[in-house]
Amino acid sequence: MDIFIEPIGKLINEFSKLPGVGKKTAQRYAYKIIGMTDGEARAFAESIINCKRKVRYCNVCGNFTEDEVCEICKRRESSTICVVKEPKDVIAMEKLREYKGVYHVLHGVISPMEGIGPNDIKIKELLARVNGGGVQEVIMATNPDVEGEATAMYIAKLLNPLGVNVTRLAHGIPIGSELEYTDEVTLSRALSERKSI
Amino acid sequence: MDIFIEPIGKLINEFSKLPGVGKKTAQRYAYKIIGMTDGEARAFAESIINCKRKVRYCNVCGNFTEDEVCEICKRRESSTICVVKEPKDVIAMEKLREYKGVYHVLHGVISPMEGIGPNDIKIKELLARVNGGGVQEVIMATNPDVEGEATAMYIAKLLNPLGVNVTRLAHGIPIGSELEYTDEVTLSRALSERKSI
Repeated sequence: MDIFIEPIGKLINEFSKLPGVGKKTAQRYAYKIIGMTDGEARAFAESIINCKRKVRYCNVCGNFTEDEVCEICKRRESSTICVVKEPKDVIAMEKLREYKGVYHVLHGVISPMEGIGPNDIKIKELLARVNGGGVQEVIMATNPDVEGEATAMYIAKLLNPLGVNVTRLAHGIPIGSELEYTDEVTLSRALSERKSI
Repeated sequence: MDIFIEPIGKLINEFSKLPGVGKKTAQRYAYKIIGMTDGEARAFAESIINCKRKVRYCNVCGNFTEDEVCEICKRRESSTICVVKEPKDVIAMEKLREYKGVYHVLHGVISPMEGIGPNDIKIKELLARVNGGGVQEVIMATNPDVEGEATAMYIAKLLNPLGVNVTRLAHGIPIGSELEYTDEVTLSRALSERKSI
């Protein structure tokens, strides 16, 4: 990397930390930054710091928010909770503009291979919400892969005794893929055909 | 974009300005930033500002530098000048670790289609360097595309009367591709087989 002068080398190194970005792509990004005006580069840098500083997790559902509680938790009817693995899955569901309930973000799934157990993800927070009352249905919308299925089953077993209707997104989502990348028609079908587990 | 809260939406928008980055990729990058520690995000942002603030063009050759004159111009023998289109082409040449001379970055090539004439790129600066004396050879290393070839020919016509040996990287570089993406073996061959034009 001594071919690059130090500030460029450092920036290439930073860009290389982004997912799927190699040295060559990082180099292209760095040249783009050098070609920007001072104002543009400053706006870019500030948006990184701002995003990191302002974005926090909702105290209720665990989704991204700027406040204590997110806009979805504040405004939407809370009798239905859709349980997802990550905040980006909320975005995937919201793009449908069909779902009217609230969310619960687990921030992971149970994965013995990676040493992630039930206590490492937000399951007890979900149980507390359901125990708090008013919840009629919990839709399990974890990814249709091994860990996602296992996590859905595990949570269903905990919730069923509480008298809440636990459902799972219908088959239609290709097994092995990820919720985030499912096309909207398939995801919409899976939502309307969800079934009790 | 109203699905995203404002700081995330802004950051996605900034990442979308990078070459070849669409909304989906920008979204992945933004999530990566949110997942970083405060220190990591700050280091990322600072490297952008630092790179933009510290990097300038060498007064002699036009390559990236932190000082008035770049390290290559300071240290290397200046009887051979390699003329390239952009600073990134200097990197491509330097990776060979074969070339011992200096560079001249044109910052573009003559392109009537895009309204770029000889006065819009650093040709007169190159003539001044050659007129300054001590230059024995000028290697034209512009890309082997229409604009690059035309620019090489144009500059050769101006330099030949000055008694300097003007050479061109040998064929071997695939026509229509770009210098930056040429594999090193091909580029090395093109350097050793350069010929007068």
